[in-house]
Formats: sequence, structure tokens, C-alpha cells
Amino acid sequence: MRKKYLLAPGPTPVPESVLLAMAQPVVHHRTPQFSEVFKETAELLKYVFQTKEDVLILASSGTGAMEGAVVNLFSPGDEVIVINGGKFGERWGKISESYGLKVHWINVEWGRAVDPETVKDVLAKNQNVRGILCQASETSTTVLHPVKELAELTRERDCIIVVDGITAVGVVDIPMDRWGIDVLVSGSQKAFMLPPGLAFISLSEKAWRFCDDARCPKFYFDLKKERKNLARHTTAYTPAVSLITGLREALALIKEEGLENVFARHARLARATREAMKALGLKLLAPENPSPAATGVYVPDGIDGGKFVKYLRDDMGVTLAGGQDHLKGRIFRIAHLGYIDTFDIIIAISAVEMALKRFGHKVELGRGVGTAQEILLEGFET
Amino acid sequence: MRKKYLLAPGPTPVPESVLLAMAQPVVHHRTPQFSEVFKETAELLKYVFQTKEDVLILASSGTGAMEGAVVNLFSPGDEVIVINGGKFGERWGKISESYGLKVHWINVEWGRAVDPETVKDVLAKNQNVRGILCQASETSTTVLHPVKELAELTRERDCIIVVDGITAVGVVDIPMDRWGIDVLVSGSQKAFMLPPGLAFISLSEKAWRFCDDARCPKFYFDLKKERKNLARHTTAYTPAVSLITGLREALALIKEEGLENVFARHARLARATREAMKALGLKLLAPENPSPAATGVYVPDGIDGGKFVKYLRDDMGVTLAGGQDHLKGRIFRIAHLGYIDTFDIIIAISAVEMALKRFGHKVELGRGVGTAQEILLEGFET
Repeated sequence: MRKKYLLAPGPTPVPESVLLAMAQPVVHHRTPQFSEVFKETAELLKYVFQTKEDVLILASSGTGAMEGAVVNLFSPGDEVIVINGGKFGERWGKISESYGLKVHWINVEWGRAVDPETVKDVLAKNQNVRGILCQASETSTTVLHPVKELAELTRERDCIIVVDGITAVGVVDIPMDRWGIDVLVSGSQKAFMLPPGLAFISLSEKAWRFCDDARCPKFYFDLKKERKNLARHTTAYTPAVSLITGLREALALIKEEGLENVFARHARLARATREAMKALGLKLLAPENPSPAATGVYVPDGIDGGKFVKYLRDDMGVTLAGGQDHLKGRIFRIAHLGYIDTFDIIIAISAVEMALKRFGHKVELGRGVGTAQEILLEGFET
Repeated sequence: MRKKYLLAPGPTPVPESVLLAMAQPVVHHRTPQFSEVFKETAELLKYVFQTKEDVLILASSGTGAMEGAVVNLFSPGDEVIVINGGKFGERWGKISESYGLKVHWINVEWGRAVDPETVKDVLAKNQNVRGILCQASETSTTVLHPVKELAELTRERDCIIVVDGITAVGVVDIPMDRWGIDVLVSGSQKAFMLPPGLAFISLSEKAWRFCDDARCPKFYFDLKKERKNLARHTTAYTPAVSLITGLREALALIKEEGLENVFARHARLARATREAMKALGLKLLAPENPSPAATGVYVPDGIDGGKFVKYLRDDMGVTLAGGQDHLKGRIFRIAHLGYIDTFDIIIAISAVEMALKRFGHKVELGRGVGTAQEILLEGFET
């Protein structure tokens, strides 16, 4: 017997009631019954996105919605700034270049957040820049970028801020309307506590105006078409019915817990994880601007990170994430977003302690757990 | 959000694949389809009971099978010895007296195992005793009784040993045929990893001969009638179809893991729990003959055990068991039988540590967890 625990930054665990909702018989999507589900779901999404704008639901991974953003907002030859501080920042640039946009790359060391002053400088030198493309939470480096400050740079300019909030929306406070975020993207398998398969995207009025001029070719990811369909409580193409039925339940859970409490829980779990790792003498990948979605940790010298993560997954049943690209084999990432609570974090930390010991690293078993427990106790009534 | 963890000595957690098996459409019980399921299940039960005899499946709680044992084996006026060292030992006596049997009570201090010499003495002084009724694992006191030695006392005599193995069968090595156990009873919600609702009972040839003379009144729990039906792959009265379908899956899991490995797992989890509690300075209820099903622990002085267990359950989401009768409010019990593995034990111990701290008890967080981790590591490949 070996129980399985999922503590990767997506997919995240799915609550039992959501699994049950998805196990219901599939209803036909062109029916009043499904339209009712869809309408309720779309309303609840606005709550989590903290916006009065429509939130479109796409049957795709988050990358689909990222591509949808680029092709609906820009035209070939348009200039954009891409904050490239990790795998997903890089992806914004790759998508943009695939459609002939001119990318001003701002490269940021992996593990660090972008400095808004740098972006301000590039913007000042390139008056034609029409968009800033960035991550709120860069999943590959477990860094939180200063989206609020970046959004401010686009005010009073013919420029929009396009944010990949895939591991940020529903994780950390990122109020779309209040901060003036023009485009916000997310995906189902993160804080939304669903299996992969859905992406969400919401546009400000300013962003919708950009869509009128955009000349990139598009068909499936035609956001104006989706917006028209949304008004009639449906989608342009076949919606992922069961996932949306599950989404309604997951959003109801989020609303019941309350966004503020959800954010506080993620912050507490993240802090407990970081302090536990530090107590074990391990080095954090992003000590200065850590994301509450996941914590990146350097594997101690002499341990093969790939084998370490594989041992945790295959022998101990605990799935963490490894590193990508040049961080491959050098780090592991513990996720603490979505349907994750106190004892999931205890499991992750105790498993890391035990695996370290197995790999011959000197470790005081229980030391990290004890440090985390102290912080996690804050989540319980006194 | 508050996830729930079930660590009581029954009901125990149900594996996902068993839940899915039970969620299948209900089949009619008088069909070849169900008979096939029933036949396979009954065969697998023999493996877990370690017997070549039939294992009958009753739609009842474990107490139903206990009553079934008494009414099928004995007659009013028959003399029996009851080992009364806890709530369930007492139950054997109550059932026996309800049917007019004459009970020789052997009272054992709660938390201690019976001394076979005592039983031998009572048996020597009462030559007419026809049965010894005892628990293998006394759930209320987390004690393991010396069933092998007790069984030996009944050899070469017109006396049978009737064992409540409700939290022993599938938990610890209790080989029915090899030890010469005449009657062995168990229930679905323990090591069998099912919801409550099924009881199992198996009789030796000697016990079946006792049935021929038994004159207690009975109808639903008529074991001879059930045995005849079992031969035709069915039951006398409507079987609990979904539970039996789930049982087949659960038994397949046990067989796949292998009984020896299951026993080793339970022993390891139990040892980790005991050593962790001792490391926290807590006192065990049954330090000498502990059951691998559950560990009873005294609540420290000054803490109300009822409130302590309630806080763990309602505030922390971790369901342990409290104490019964005169141990009510004085102990808690952590279960480690069934679908329970390494990280369930970590959860239980860390929750106890955190709750102790909440209740003002001086505790070094992580101390018990660290002690357990050291032992639990034995369960992983090196």
C-alpha cells in the first residue's frame, strides 16, 4: 500500500464534492439546464477574479488562454514588453513572436522578481510599446512579480498590462479592477481545485478596445465571439460540461470560505513551508519575493534533485515538482495552493525530511515539521 | 476549509477504488452476476481469516455476529468463561446472559491482557465450561489478548474458543486453523477497509458440531442456514450488495499487498505511534500488550479528554477516539489499522502535538513526529 499525495503547483488536489459533481451524468450543452449551470459559474468567476467584467471560460489549458490574449489584443509588428524571469515568462515571448509581434525582452534572474523601475525605463525608451506581458506568480521560480506597480505604468498610455495569473488568481490578492489589470488569465488545475482542461480570461474595457484593432489570425480563441456567447449563457464551441459542473461546485467552496480566508490560508501554508525549509538548513529559490502558490527549494549539494523528487513520488507517494530548464535537478517545489491545508504541508515537510535522511543528508527529523506546526497553529481557533 | 481525517479504530478510511466499486449500479442479489461476486468474495475472505473453513457474510454490525456465535453454539444453562477486560469483553458476557448462559466472568484490569494461567485455573475448577469467549484485540483498551495460549486450553476438551477478532483479523497474525480457533468473528469497518454494515464469522469443524446441540432461539443469525446458502453462493436473507461488491475489491487489495506485509505495516505504524507518544512524555494505556489496531494514550493531567478529542475532531479535522466507561475523558485512541499509512500517522501525531500546545501543555512541537519518522522510514526502500 502506498497512498498518493499531490503537492505540485498544478494539477492540485480536487475536493471530494467537486469530484462528485463531475461524476454526475453529462448534460447536453445546448439546453436550458446547462445554461443555468454556466450562468451561475460565470457569475462566481467574477467574484474570484475580483472584477465586474465578463470572465470567459475556454476549453483549453492555460497556455490556450495566453495565446488567446496575444492574438485578440495585438497585431503582427506590435511592440510588447515581456517579463522573462522563468519558464512562463518565456512563454509569453514565444507566443508573441509566433504571431510576429516585436518583443522587448526583460530578462530577470530565475528566483527574483522584476524591478518595476527597469520596466519603466524600457517603456520610456520605447514609446510604441502596446503591452506588458508578465506573470503574477511565476510558477517555475516560485516568485511573485509586482503586478500592481507594473499595472500603474500602463495608465494614461496606449498600453495594456496582460497578466498570467494562472497560479495567482484565487491564491493571492490580485484585484483585477482595483489594480487596473487589463487582461487576467488563469487555469482550472490551480487554485480552482479542478482537473486540467479549462482556462479563464477576463478583459478590461480598455483591453476590449484593443481587440477591435487586433489583426492576428484566430479562430478557436476568438474572444469577441466568446463574449457574445457568454451573454447568452453558452460558449461558441462545445464546452467541457463536466469540468464546468465541477467548477461551479469549486467556486461555491471558495465563496463559502471567503476570498480573504483563502488568501490567508495560502499565505500561512507558504510561510510555514518556507520557515520549515530554512529550519532544515535548506536554501530557498526565491527568498525575497516568494509566491504563496509554491516554494522552491535548492536540493543540498551532492544530492541529485531528479532522483530526490522521483524517490519522493515513487517510493513515498508524495508528488512535489522538480526544477525546469537550468534548474532541473537542482530544486524541488512544494505547492500550497488550492485544496491544500495544514496536514498536507505537514506531510510534504515530513516527507522531505525523511527523503533527505534516506539520501544521506544530515537532518534532524521533526525539526522542519515542528517549525511549521508553530505557524500552522495560527490557523486554528484558540 | 478543513479537511477531515479518520483515525478512529473503526470505521476506518475506505480506499478510493473500494468507494468506486461500491458506487457501481446495484445488481440484483438473486442473479448469476451477483453470485459470481459473492463466490469470489467468500474465497478471498478465507485467505484473510487464514482458514479452509467457510467464512459467512452477515448483513449486520460485528455485534450481530457475536450474538450469532452465542446463539448457534450454546444452549440456555451452558457454562462459558468470558474474558472481561474492556467494553467488548463485557459484551460477550451480556449477550451470553441475555440467552440464559451461565457466565464465569474473568475480570481483567482495563489496559492489561488476561493471564492464560488464570483462565486455566477457572477451567480446572469448572469442568462443565463449554466455551471461552474473548477478544483478540480489545478495542476499548487497545490490548492484545493471548489468543494462541487460550486456544490451547480448549484442546482435548469439550470446550471451544470463541474469538472476537473484530480489530484483529487482517490487522495482526491470528491464523484461525493453525491456532485451532473454533469461532472467529470480524466486521467490515476495520481492517477490511469498508464502511460498517457487514460482519464475518467462521467456525471450525468442532464448532459446527456444537451447533447441532445448541438450543438458543434464533432466526436471522441462523449460521447453519447461512452455511447452506453459502454453498450455493448466496445468503439466506438479502445481502448488502454494494458493501459486498466493495469487499471484493478491498480483499483484492489486501491479497495484493500480502497479509505478511499488511501485518508488518500495522506493526510499524503502531510502534511509531507508541514511541512518539512516549517521546512526548505521555503515558500509554496498554504498555505491555499493545494491540497493533490502536494505541490508547492517557490525556495529561489537567486536560479534559473529552474536550481534547472534540477539539481535534471539530477544530483540526482529525477524528481520534476517546475513552469509554470509566476511561471516558481520560484517554484518546489513535487507530492504525486498515487503509492507514505513514503520513496518516504523521498527521495524527502532529495534530496531537498541536492540540496539546493549544491546551496549554508543555510540548516540543515536532518531537513526537521526529520519533515516529525514524521508525516509519523502515517502511521505505533504502
